[in-house]
Amino acid sequence: MGKVVGSVVSTQKDPSLVGRKLMIIQPINADGQTVRHEEVAADTVGAGIGEYVLYVRGAGARNSSPQGDPHADVMDAAIVGIIDRFDS
Amino acid sequence: MGKVVGSVVSTQKDPSLVGRKLMIIQPINADGQTVRHEEVAADTVGAGIGEYVLYVRGAGARNSSPQGDPHADVMDAAIVGIIDRFDS
Amino acid sequence: MGKVVGSVVSTQKDPSLVGRKLMIIQPINADGQTVRHEEVAADTVGAGIGEYVLYVRGAGARNSSPQGDPHADVMDAAIVGIIDRFDS
Amino acid sequence: MGKVVGSVVSTQKDPSLVGRKLMIIQPINADGQTVRHEEVAADTVGAGIGEYVLYVRGAGARNSSPQGDPHADVMDAAIVGIIDRFDS
Amino acid sequence: MGKVVGSVVSTQKDPSLVGRKLMIIQPINADGQTVRHEEVAADTVGAGIGEYVLYVRGAGARNSSPQGDPHADVMDAAIVGIIDRFDS
Repeated sequence: MGKVVGSVVSTQKDPSLVGRKLMIIQPINADGQTVRHEEVAADTVGAGIGEYVLYVRGAGARNSSPQGDPHADVMDAAIVGIIDRFDS
Repeated sequence: MGKVVGSVVSTQKDPSLVGRKLMIIQPINADGQTVRHEEVAADTVGAGIGEYVLYVRGAGARNSSPQGDPHADVMDAAIVGIIDRFDS
Repeated sequence: MGKVVGSVVSTQKDPSLVGRKLMIIQPINADGQTVRHEEVAADTVGAGIGEYVLYVRGAGARNSSPQGDPHADVMDAAIVGIIDRFDS
Repeated sequence: MGKVVGSVVSTQKDPSLVGRKLMIIQPINADGQTVRHEEVAADTVGAGIGEYVLYVRGAGARNSSPQGDPHADVMDAAIVGIIDRFDS
Repeated sequence: MGKVVGSVVSTQKDPSLVGRKLMIIQPINADGQTVRHEEVAADTVGAGIGEYVLYVRGAGARNSSPQGDPHADVMDAAIVGIIDRFDS
């Protein structure tokens, strides 16, 4: 899980990335503490800056690709849910 | 291996995540010492908060998907066992 | 590479894990120094506690599955060799 | 995301790497702070030293391979975009 | 990228590892600084102790397997090039 802290603008890029929103994610613990370092993930759920999100890496991320062909997608991380709240 | 420390509520999410329990895992060593940082994993064995669990990442996690089609699943981590005890 | 430091007992687990030995591995450097944190790996070579082993993660681990179908296996780590010695 | 800080010259290498530009990437946060450690990635977008780039790991990297057959490609990281700017 | 610092001798191992040279790699930055911890990788290019090498993880490593069938290979890391020099 992470927090969306920004976005990336890239003109020169792989064809599979054209038209996709690339967000910067700061990984966090459930108490909001930051962990690791920022990563870039393709947004598939309309997440905005400041929101807490569920994001995944690897083939799972490509399975969320709107283009429908994970094998033509270069992305390795994707936002797949907006977190409403943490329960514990 | 990890300890279940909470769960995540998400309304806006990838279709493959609808109806799945998303738990927050704190990775641990066998002596209970916390390591790394919390992660979200889909529960497939009925794990509750406070339990020690075996969880896996990547394609192994999608192989545990109850839907049966790992290629439509975006999740990249899953709880696949409840740990009764550690032997050493 | 790592050292086998224990095992995990789990009754409630994914069907693909039934009958498999799940060992706790402490990753090490060649000089025996511990690194990172403990992990659980399925044993495929008869490794015992205290032995130094070669273990792998991801699809490589599932390729070692005795069941023969890596796509039904949830495990993401496996012991694939017992280390006799390190040369340098 | 990362910054291109150098390149690697290798004569003796896997056939799938012949003719490819192998760049050294220093991972960074959006504020330019260095994180983790340097990695080697195949360039697919004409990135030069000093540029900020989007790079991916694993099968996503092989999906960007110009040869068209990800299953013959050994590379595990690729530069897939040049970052024009970070928004936050 | 890394430096070859030793090798591993293993008699009892997965059949896919028979006859392969398993080297110990110390990951490094381009300035030779050691990072992370040692790893074991299958050598495919004739790398010797003390040499700087390009190595990859995951399916990319299995794509370099001389046996030709990545799906029967358990290895998750491979040396795929000898580094002549770093440019920056």
